[in-house]
Amino acid sequence: MSARAGVVVTGTEVLTGIIADRNGPWLSERLRDRGIDHAHTAIVGDRPEDLRAALDFLAAQGMDLIVTSGGLGPTEDDLTARIVAEFAGRPFVLDAALEGRIAAILERLTRRWPDVDQEAIRAGNRKQAMVPEGAEILEPVGTAPGFVVGSAPAVVVLPGPPRELQPMWEAAVRTETFRAAVAGATEYRTGMMRLFGIPESEIAETLRVARAGGVAIDELEITTCLRRGEIEIATRYEPAHAAVYDAFAAVVRERHADTLFSEDGSTIDQQVAALLRDRAATIAVAESCTGGMVAGRLTDVAGSSAYVRGGLVVYSNEAKVELAGVDPALIERFGAVSTEVAEALADGARARLGADVGVGVTGIAGPGGGTGDKPVGTVCFSVALDGARMTRRVQLPGGRADVRDRSTAVALHMVRRVLLEAG
Amino acid sequence: MSARAGVVVTGTEVLTGIIADRNGPWLSERLRDRGIDHAHTAIVGDRPEDLRAALDFLAAQGMDLIVTSGGLGPTEDDLTARIVAEFAGRPFVLDAALEGRIAAILERLTRRWPDVDQEAIRAGNRKQAMVPEGAEILEPVGTAPGFVVGSAPAVVVLPGPPRELQPMWEAAVRTETFRAAVAGATEYRTGMMRLFGIPESEIAETLRVARAGGVAIDELEITTCLRRGEIEIATRYEPAHAAVYDAFAAVVRERHADTLFSEDGSTIDQQVAALLRDRAATIAVAESCTGGMVAGRLTDVAGSSAYVRGGLVVYSNEAKVELAGVDPALIERFGAVSTEVAEALADGARARLGADVGVGVTGIAGPGGGTGDKPVGTVCFSVALDGARMTRRVQLPGGRADVRDRSTAVALHMVRRVLLEAG
Repeated sequence: MSARAGVVVTGTEVLTGIIADRNGPWLSERLRDRGIDHAHTAIVGDRPEDLRAALDFLAAQGMDLIVTSGGLGPTEDDLTARIVAEFAGRPFVLDAALEGRIAAILERLTRRWPDVDQEAIRAGNRKQAMVPEGAEILEPVGTAPGFVVGSAPAVVVLPGPPRELQPMWEAAVRTETFRAAVAGATEYRTGMMRLFGIPESEIAETLRVARAGGVAIDELEITTCLRRGEIEIATRYEPAHAAVYDAFAAVVRERHADTLFSEDGSTIDQQVAALLRDRAATIAVAESCTGGMVAGRLTDVAGSSAYVRGGLVVYSNEAKVELAGVDPALIERFGAVSTEVAEALADGARARLGADVGVGVTGIAGPGGGTGDKPVGTVCFSVALDGARMTRRVQLPGGRADVRDRSTAVALHMVRRVLLEAG
Repeated sequence: MSARAGVVVTGTEVLTGIIADRNGPWLSERLRDRGIDHAHTAIVGDRPEDLRAALDFLAAQGMDLIVTSGGLGPTEDDLTARIVAEFAGRPFVLDAALEGRIAAILERLTRRWPDVDQEAIRAGNRKQAMVPEGAEILEPVGTAPGFVVGSAPAVVVLPGPPRELQPMWEAAVRTETFRAAVAGATEYRTGMMRLFGIPESEIAETLRVARAGGVAIDELEITTCLRRGEIEIATRYEPAHAAVYDAFAAVVRERHADTLFSEDGSTIDQQVAALLRDRAATIAVAESCTGGMVAGRLTDVAGSSAYVRGGLVVYSNEAKVELAGVDPALIERFGAVSTEVAEALADGARARLGADVGVGVTGIAGPGGGTGDKPVGTVCFSVALDGARMTRRVQLPGGRADVRDRSTAVALHMVRRVLLEAG
């Protein structure tokens, strides 16, 4: 019987979508890595009774552990510490030593802001040093401390900013309170397969085929999900069922050889980066409808300056001609959105930036600009390499943001194909 | 007494963060627009007992309305409709007419995939046509129908993909069941102020000053949040308290005149777009560490082709020289990350792309590349316009993704300043 955990994400700004929650998913992964069964995430606003109700619900569901994020700031609407103290049945007390340590941090930080109100700082400092009696303190990464308190359930209280929450989680798992709460959890294994360019119903069918072929897939926890045109098959299983997973993976491999691109958890971004590094090849982009997103995604990868030569965002026809060297007669004859212009862009990117691989993207992201012949979502791609070239015209679904996002994914997958085929 | 609602987002892939939830925040906004008090969002995996527990929790909290997203697909792990039928105490029945309408949709869709398994399609079709008896059906936008069923609470069941959920929501609010559930809700008003370039503690102090000055801010529901270096002050209030909000906004305006950039809900992206349109000015970017993200964000705006001339992603020094025309002696003397090179990039973008406004960005996003003098997070910016120029060197906190994201925000804010000051 593995330990069960719930996550409570607090903050009206998260509940209402002013900011997107990154902590719930991140904590979920960490919990599962430790073999702790993550059953619920509750998102609540800055109302004390709603936070309390979520804690009571998770306790009633028999959770061994509850992790909260947010509500530890210096302002009046940050109330997590107090509510957790009430929930755990502990007095809410000032930790004077902690107050001193926070003050030292604030002193350093506020040097940048000479005009800041010192009384406001002190009030916030004192509030942030209030904790439930007997809690194990997690030292601040920013200015807010966290803590771990109680049992059945134990509660881990972490700040909202991911860059504070993540390192503090590592401290939380080392506390006595945490270890006692999750004692006996078995570590699960996970598998991830990624496919590109097939409909989700095909995977549903593959699950049926595997089961019919005697693979005990009910021993696996399989989740399929479609995003950015890629299908991800995430599987979680007990170490004893590793052979079942291997058999399942073999079925997927056999049925989807042409679309399965990752079995080791690697993303398309990482694969493109690794291929470029392996081949000591440089890359350059000339993009229109994606407006910098292909270059942006290539340079997301740390160390990409070793192989990304640069990019041209050629939104206007003039820029396509002057910057990327596209022959204006091509645009005149075939239109700016055409496979011919995509090829000229790829060649132009290579030539102008002196790169081995050139990528050209031109399309209609919408909402305007579509025609009967070339509706919104029409995008042309070309990837050029010495002696090799791949060119495609694709019709992508969705609105402007979808078309731009999917186009970026298609471009990366084409780069991968070309590099693999060039060997 | 306004109606209260809870949202249940289903799907192991959302719980575990394989995909980010966009529906919870979107639904939250829609509920609040209608004066419905959104108290909780619960995220649960694909386990029937967890979904049921979340529904029971929200019912126990006295919700008048529950909205679910996801779990309506053709695969076996999609189980929302069945669990909601049990929760509502209704038999789970096949709607034969609905089955026929879904079949017609599938017939059109699968023409693209000639090799698809027809039996798999039919099985999924039948599953998607099962609904609680007496539910009001919401016609499919993709292939999955939704429905509204029950009372105290009524449950609105919507599919997971945002492009299906969003139009279907509009159908849901017109159903009898929905209208009965939320009868009597009062529509609230909302206000949004955005500031750039001050610490959050200053806003906490402004709240105290406003209260001390007699503004009844307890009548307002104020949420402050820091993201991408911007502070957002979101306020929700009953129409009767409009004068209180006006008084509060006046205090913010007086204390933060130099950093308050938006009072009408507009984002920096929208403001930059509007300024460029108003002044009939075109823009071009030459960016290094942001690697296409500034151009990408400028072109996110529909219609941006009217004023975005294009961009240069000059990741390598060679590209800075050859593409953007930066004098190699500048790089030699001051380094690639310097205000001098940022200025040369801005000028180069203007000249090469024939734009009115040129933006130059060069910095160290990390994790490598930092030095004692120029640590990771050092970014230089320049915005050039005929007869005007603004140049800054900034030290940004956080990891690679944070530095790139913040840099993009700083660049946009500088463009706004330069355009406003140029008049």
